[in-house]
Amino acid sequence: MKIAVFRKAHFNAAHRLHNPDWSDEKNKEMYGVCNNYNYHGHNYDLEVKVVGEVDPESGYLIDLKRLKDIIKEKVENKFDHKNLNLDVPEFANWPTSTENLCYLIWDIMQKSLGDQYEVTIKLWETPRNYVQYPANG
Amino acid sequence: MKIAVFRKAHFNAAHRLHNPDWSDEKNKEMYGVCNNYNYHGHNYDLEVKVVGEVDPESGYLIDLKRLKDIIKEKVENKFDHKNLNLDVPEFANWPTSTENLCYLIWDIMQKSLGDQYEVTIKLWETPRNYVQYPANG
Amino acid sequence: MKIAVFRKAHFNAAHRLHNPDWSDEKNKEMYGVCNNYNYHGHNYDLEVKVVGEVDPESGYLIDLKRLKDIIKEKVENKFDHKNLNLDVPEFANWPTSTENLCYLIWDIMQKSLGDQYEVTIKLWETPRNYVQYPANG
Amino acid sequence: MKIAVFRKAHFNAAHRLHNPDWSDEKNKEMYGVCNNYNYHGHNYDLEVKVVGEVDPESGYLIDLKRLKDIIKEKVENKFDHKNLNLDVPEFANWPTSTENLCYLIWDIMQKSLGDQYEVTIKLWETPRNYVQYPANG
Amino acid sequence: MKIAVFRKAHFNAAHRLHNPDWSDEKNKEMYGVCNNYNYHGHNYDLEVKVVGEVDPESGYLIDLKRLKDIIKEKVENKFDHKNLNLDVPEFANWPTSTENLCYLIWDIMQKSLGDQYEVTIKLWETPRNYVQYPANG
Amino acid sequence: MKIAVFRKAHFNAAHRLHNPDWSDEKNKEMYGVCNNYNYHGHNYDLEVKVVGEVDPESGYLIDLKRLKDIIKEKVENKFDHKNLNLDVPEFANWPTSTENLCYLIWDIMQKSLGDQYEVTIKLWETPRNYVQYPANG
Repeated sequence: MKIAVFRKAHFNAAHRLHNPDWSDEKNKEMYGVCNNYNYHGHNYDLEVKVVGEVDPESGYLIDLKRLKDIIKEKVENKFDHKNLNLDVPEFANWPTSTENLCYLIWDIMQKSLGDQYEVTIKLWETPRNYVQYPANG
Repeated sequence: MKIAVFRKAHFNAAHRLHNPDWSDEKNKEMYGVCNNYNYHGHNYDLEVKVVGEVDPESGYLIDLKRLKDIIKEKVENKFDHKNLNLDVPEFANWPTSTENLCYLIWDIMQKSLGDQYEVTIKLWETPRNYVQYPANG
Repeated sequence: MKIAVFRKAHFNAAHRLHNPDWSDEKNKEMYGVCNNYNYHGHNYDLEVKVVGEVDPESGYLIDLKRLKDIIKEKVENKFDHKNLNLDVPEFANWPTSTENLCYLIWDIMQKSLGDQYEVTIKLWETPRNYVQYPANG
Repeated sequence: MKIAVFRKAHFNAAHRLHNPDWSDEKNKEMYGVCNNYNYHGHNYDLEVKVVGEVDPESGYLIDLKRLKDIIKEKVENKFDHKNLNLDVPEFANWPTSTENLCYLIWDIMQKSLGDQYEVTIKLWETPRNYVQYPANG
Repeated sequence: MKIAVFRKAHFNAAHRLHNPDWSDEKNKEMYGVCNNYNYHGHNYDLEVKVVGEVDPESGYLIDLKRLKDIIKEKVENKFDHKNLNLDVPEFANWPTSTENLCYLIWDIMQKSLGDQYEVTIKLWETPRNYVQYPANG
Repeated sequence: MKIAVFRKAHFNAAHRLHNPDWSDEKNKEMYGVCNNYNYHGHNYDLEVKVVGEVDPESGYLIDLKRLKDIIKEKVENKFDHKNLNLDVPEFANWPTSTENLCYLIWDIMQKSLGDQYEVTIKLWETPRNYVQYPANG
């Protein structure tokens, strides 16, 4: 029996959208207030979807305690109360857009859980804007 | 990298469910209180899902400011603080069900954004009832 | 032991803001899009706060089933799927502002529950705008 | 025109996770506090997704009043204010995990609505943990 | 500068409403389905309001980490994944109504925080029903 | 007729908790991860409560369009997409705690609206932690 389990988490981080290959004018034009020199920040909300087979004995797809601990260790500890541009090496030369952050979290979670599970990530930058990878997961 | 971006919006409108080809009795039987002669109304909540390729330079699927402006101009301005039956020409001879309104908004948004993007619409009539088109988008 | 119990409810209604003593221009200027001739509408959310003494035997301030039934009979049945301007006699010559509607619901609930209880009403016209009467209840 | 309609519902129930084929130690290790001997409980939130063809005359996929009544009669009446382990025969020898409960509700709703509709169930055990069957419905 | 700080928490518990001094008929009549012999349960949501003076040096009313730890140790550990009737000694002869549970949590938190702070508790049994003590805190 | 009107708003900002009069050790001990050198950030949610007399002619306490514009101009424009420590002069030597930010917003709004109205501010740093000034407003 294939089923999906979802777990929510969140973290608070500072960032600015800035592409160092572009002029200040082009950055301003493309990113608007999100390019603010001194950073701004968000309460990011995260939803991890895990698809796989239910174990008939326990009735579990995955122990939620284990899923919660992996999210805590691999995602929350890496991003919470951090500056995405300065404290996260992957973003040294990569724009900190919600799209890119969502893909990075998917990559972390899919590798942590292994091929037995299919992972989909939803990431809210604000309650009105969010992103999902894979697009139809 | 194919990804999905979601943007929420809302509008407030009056409507009544009524099929002019039916008798008053059949309208009452089919639509119940939603057929009230003097209209009733809703705070409609809307979620626009846009699927496409991320631009590697900007990290954006679509500039959210542009998406927000299109929703404002093409959807909110058309329906907000309006009577769907009397103020929206498309509903002159078409029931103002949430299903039909959802399809109409999908049609507007898909045409506005073009073939480069795949659009899916969720439309809430109340927090407990909502509709999605396409069904598995 | 004095305690407060809260119960939520909701209803959907059409209305327009319009003062018949004013010119069309003054109505437009004061009420903007809320003055739309053909009405618009809302999902009104309601919270009834009831303050009184807990009955030590049952541990209840008030039987919530009874409170729910009074709200249903006196408030939801009166306003749900109605046009506030046309279907509610109290608004024949009184603007259908959220302030006035909140006061009217307070008056109905306070009289229905009697002097043994102190009632406060919160009324949401949208998730971002709401009203409370009494102001510090 | 194929479309999806969603309806939310909820019920409150007690349960404990326990596999009678296992030792007390194994149950404790697998299920942790969820194995508490005297039960604990949840406000389960439910979302029923129904996919099918819109009737062009009424503009309805399904009469929401009928959908609401089926959910009430077949799901809420069966589980609300019950002990899943003791009051629901299907769980006599089957763990009361959210996964299994979600599948059971799907089975009930799909059979009640018939082959004309495709049903998907989301079931929240808490606001942060939920399950969906079918996984990609 | 007197200010209020609020912190949310939650716990999941089983209970039944039952007064052992009453006949089964009277219990059934007063409490309805909440009297179910085998218990039912809830996700209780809790909001702790703490009023006091801000420390001008730190800008804090109270260290939220300390407040969170007290709520965890004194409230969540006592009630989470428990049966209120069987696992909580205070309810041996006292109905497990939301009113009484709210008062008990207020008493625990006010004593834990001391006279320097004024505590108010809001306790949700469901998203539509909740209780506050003190009534106007 | 004295009534209360509430309006919600939000802004996204970066900050760090840091008292320059303290050693790095004391800052770390008091503020924990909130002291992160490179800042972190939040989606701040704001609720402005305005108490006053309803105008009997219009049925309005205050034109919500005017209230929305004042909040936009005086609060959102000042804090949104900013770094509270670096971009807001009032915080040059004052910790950017939620308590202090809430008081500052109250001071701005009370002065903007004038003595005819009594203002109360609620400010959410996260969905689980928030602050109110005045404490019993």
